[in-house]
Amino acid sequence: MKLATIRHAGRTTAALEVAGGYLPLPARDVGELVGHTDWQALVRETLNGHSAPDVIAREEATILNPVPNPRKVICCGLNYSDHILEMGRELPQYPTLFAKFADTLTDPDAEIVGGHSENVDWEAELAVIVGSTLRDATEEEAAAAIAGYTVANDISMRDWQRRTLQWFQGKAFDGTTPLGPVMVTPDEIDPEAGVEVICTLNGEEVQRGNTKTLVFSSAKLLSYISTFTVLRPGDVVLTGTPGGVGMGMVPPRFLKDGDELHTEIPGIGTLSNKFSARISTTV
Amino acid sequence: MKLATIRHAGRTTAALEVAGGYLPLPARDVGELVGHTDWQALVRETLNGHSAPDVIAREEATILNPVPNPRKVICCGLNYSDHILEMGRELPQYPTLFAKFADTLTDPDAEIVGGHSENVDWEAELAVIVGSTLRDATEEEAAAAIAGYTVANDISMRDWQRRTLQWFQGKAFDGTTPLGPVMVTPDEIDPEAGVEVICTLNGEEVQRGNTKTLVFSSAKLLSYISTFTVLRPGDVVLTGTPGGVGMGMVPPRFLKDGDELHTEIPGIGTLSNKFSARISTTV
Repeated sequence: MKLATIRHAGRTTAALEVAGGYLPLPARDVGELVGHTDWQALVRETLNGHSAPDVIAREEATILNPVPNPRKVICCGLNYSDHILEMGRELPQYPTLFAKFADTLTDPDAEIVGGHSENVDWEAELAVIVGSTLRDATEEEAAAAIAGYTVANDISMRDWQRRTLQWFQGKAFDGTTPLGPVMVTPDEIDPEAGVEVICTLNGEEVQRGNTKTLVFSSAKLLSYISTFTVLRPGDVVLTGTPGGVGMGMVPPRFLKDGDELHTEIPGIGTLSNKFSARISTTV
Repeated sequence: MKLATIRHAGRTTAALEVAGGYLPLPARDVGELVGHTDWQALVRETLNGHSAPDVIAREEATILNPVPNPRKVICCGLNYSDHILEMGRELPQYPTLFAKFADTLTDPDAEIVGGHSENVDWEAELAVIVGSTLRDATEEEAAAAIAGYTVANDISMRDWQRRTLQWFQGKAFDGTTPLGPVMVTPDEIDPEAGVEVICTLNGEEVQRGNTKTLVFSSAKLLSYISTFTVLRPGDVVLTGTPGGVGMGMVPPRFLKDGDELHTEIPGIGTLSNKFSARISTTV
């Protein structure tokens, strides 16, 4: 199934994608929904009990970031073999991890504002949404705890990322990582078998990778992370980006005011984000 | 004034340190307290309206981490000129930043459990607690937004920290950064004028630095961070550690099962933490 967080008639709600639109679910967002012990049963009950007028027409809903309030957003860098080689590095023994905040995330069609940076770059990624609590979990336990998958773009301020040895400050600008448009459950999509991750800039394809070339699978990442910190329902893990980022081009290429970025994973959906070079002071 | 989060008679509360003990304040912890618009007035009102029996005797209170639920815990590395030289690096133009989670924090006298690492090291630090919302703030605005200061030990798993280029995974083990014992307001302590930061291992002094040698002051750090992400009341910023960490010793020295670590800033207080080499799976 495909789950979204939508706004309709001034109200925000988790919703199930159904024929003709969205069926509201008893949770404010997908992150809160997957916090329910048996959220799949809750969705099925709502689906069985609904009548046609409950469905919100697609054109009347605004699609938001499915998980607006994760306690943890953890990202893996250097995870696609082609991107690792593009960056001039060797295949890693351990995942390279860094953190973002809930504030870093934004809606699937949000404007990305990056005025404090001269080197704003794209990173199309598969993101995993955690569905149950994980601590010191095996890979099998971690696989069973995946609530679903969504699309992310880990927009990166390369100048800030390279100011010091730690990437964090170039990766944690508020409202710069669009997420969505829906969370797709693992019965409908299998990143280990391979899904494509595509990024286009003003209609030109700049990235195309396949998750079957990931060095660390979603389950491996969740298991590894759970060794040092607990993961809870609604937490988000970004799995890394394939080759084709602007920094890797000769000469390097970065986002310009008005650029249109599309980030797509077939079977999940597309993020559509316009870039603005102005300075954001939104709180 | 000195503020603590204490447990007494099964209840957790923010409290003001007074003669003979602690006066409970109308908030569950210091993080929640500083979220009130005029929390200083709230403390004064409670102080003026209280009678002697309201005070909880020192020996009846358990002192907890003052800010258990920050949305952001951001740390600065390489900030003391002596520690930077010890690590073989040049004085930086920009602060090196990385993130921890609320889950990384623990109580001022908590046992530190580090069984997944062979190289557990200490980093005594001054920590800043944010008192109002900051976004794109000047250094002056940032200075005015400091609620107070406390003591931290940024216990670091050096083997995990060095597995990849990003330190994060060696810095974010659950329950490994003790914080406390109290938050001291800026009218009582001035890190820019200089306070000592001291770490002893089994009674032997291993670190002693002075905050007047910080490359980036607390206000500079808060201002810089607020350029890319909003800081809110109760958020925590760790300002870095002086020279004397185990990794910098010849040969390197790390924590052993049963070691006793004391982290002190005169004028604030002391963290007392015993180290255990067992594996933690606490959620």
